[in-house]
Amino acid sequence: MSQPLILVCNDDGIHAPGIRALVEAVEHLGDVVVVAPDRPQSGMGHAVTIGEPLRIHQKTGLFGRHQAYETTGTPVDCVKLAVDRILHRKPDLLVSGINHGSNSSINVIYSGTMSAAVEGAIEGIPSVGFSLCNYALDADFTLAQQVATQVTQLIMANGLMPNTLLNVNIPNITGNDYKGLKICRQSAAKWKENFEERTDPYRKKYYWMVGEFHLLEHSTDTDEWALANHFASVVPVQFDLTAHHAIPYLNQWNLEG
Amino acid sequence: MSQPLILVCNDDGIHAPGIRALVEAVEHLGDVVVVAPDRPQSGMGHAVTIGEPLRIHQKTGLFGRHQAYETTGTPVDCVKLAVDRILHRKPDLLVSGINHGSNSSINVIYSGTMSAAVEGAIEGIPSVGFSLCNYALDADFTLAQQVATQVTQLIMANGLMPNTLLNVNIPNITGNDYKGLKICRQSAAKWKENFEERTDPYRKKYYWMVGEFHLLEHSTDTDEWALANHFASVVPVQFDLTAHHAIPYLNQWNLEG
Repeated sequence: MSQPLILVCNDDGIHAPGIRALVEAVEHLGDVVVVAPDRPQSGMGHAVTIGEPLRIHQKTGLFGRHQAYETTGTPVDCVKLAVDRILHRKPDLLVSGINHGSNSSINVIYSGTMSAAVEGAIEGIPSVGFSLCNYALDADFTLAQQVATQVTQLIMANGLMPNTLLNVNIPNITGNDYKGLKICRQSAAKWKENFEERTDPYRKKYYWMVGEFHLLEHSTDTDEWALANHFASVVPVQFDLTAHHAIPYLNQWNLEG
Repeated sequence: MSQPLILVCNDDGIHAPGIRALVEAVEHLGDVVVVAPDRPQSGMGHAVTIGEPLRIHQKTGLFGRHQAYETTGTPVDCVKLAVDRILHRKPDLLVSGINHGSNSSINVIYSGTMSAAVEGAIEGIPSVGFSLCNYALDADFTLAQQVATQVTQLIMANGLMPNTLLNVNIPNITGNDYKGLKICRQSAAKWKENFEERTDPYRKKYYWMVGEFHLLEHSTDTDEWALANHFASVVPVQFDLTAHHAIPYLNQWNLEG
């Protein structure tokens, strides 16, 4: 009997502990194939590689019995290469992560992990991204793995609405304090950019992006509220970026130049 | 009397003809400052530079009397650097482009030009991206410039709804055939990836992304319809990616693990 084919991606790179944790969380649910960048690609957003060729290297044994491939591309490139050149078909499910660090609220838009899942959804693959609210390389993924298993099973059992995917964030707490899953919406938030200026040995200036997270609302139906209150947040995401509510407003403009 | 401060960005790089065309289109509407990548960054999506420092170089004389800066960062980095390190304040308007090539329908999500405008909107800056449906370096920007001037004036006169920006695409036609602006929504479309395999001199394989555009609908309220019918398409865009319509569906799931 044929098992579902599960494509596993991420943006922290094929050697990150988080993708290993995700493989362990879903390997009993289907046939797993890993396709991930050969190096960390955090913050790559929905970047694709144009004007440069890509390479694919099979990594035998890196994930035990599972097929695994690293590519020189971005997370989105990995999904495209997986479908066209590695699997030669759409997988039945795409899971991305587990990201080292939150992709809640506005972070969804900068995240390579979530962009891989968005690309999967554009392809028509049921897709989900998982992120743990802890940037440490040695973070404890135990709770995140439980959540990843549960949400993956829920998607397999119920399916997703067309042209939607899930953004799942797991709070950085232990299992005892965990309250469960909460369906929510993306919080209004922004990063206040703040670049640190340094001077190189040649007396030229350069800048490191630091930046401060500003939460702009505290509603109880948001992902940030859920995470602060020890829920794992589950936000349905879409790739139709149209601000439909703004169309009537724009139609009142005098468009005759 | 103080003029509005207009930040001009793009993703094709500070030397692209399109950004020069955009400066010409808006320079009579305010004080222009150009901040753009030092090299082409098409397809960068909403990528930001993490883990590497950035540099800024002033380019005296490149845009006549206007201040201009190139950075080593992505289009989104350029917006962040402009606000924090170059202008030391929010500009009154951000215009991005004019992109060499369409950013209509699903292209909005891969586009560095549009991501710069999205970042502006996240910052609370009235923002708009302009793209001409012609990839050629020597494309004729005459009509695109007229549209850019008109839409920029409309934004200045009317303002945008909170947390929205505009994605404006200009058809590749001459002025005589042009029908005007049309407010529309993002068409459903996707790229069917298709990688061309080559073999390098060392007998190793590599892949070039080519890909084919698939339009998935033909409704008259979409940007692709507008462009095919000689309108410039104006799509309001938002950065709340929540699929709000999917929340009731997900709330029917049995979330008790």
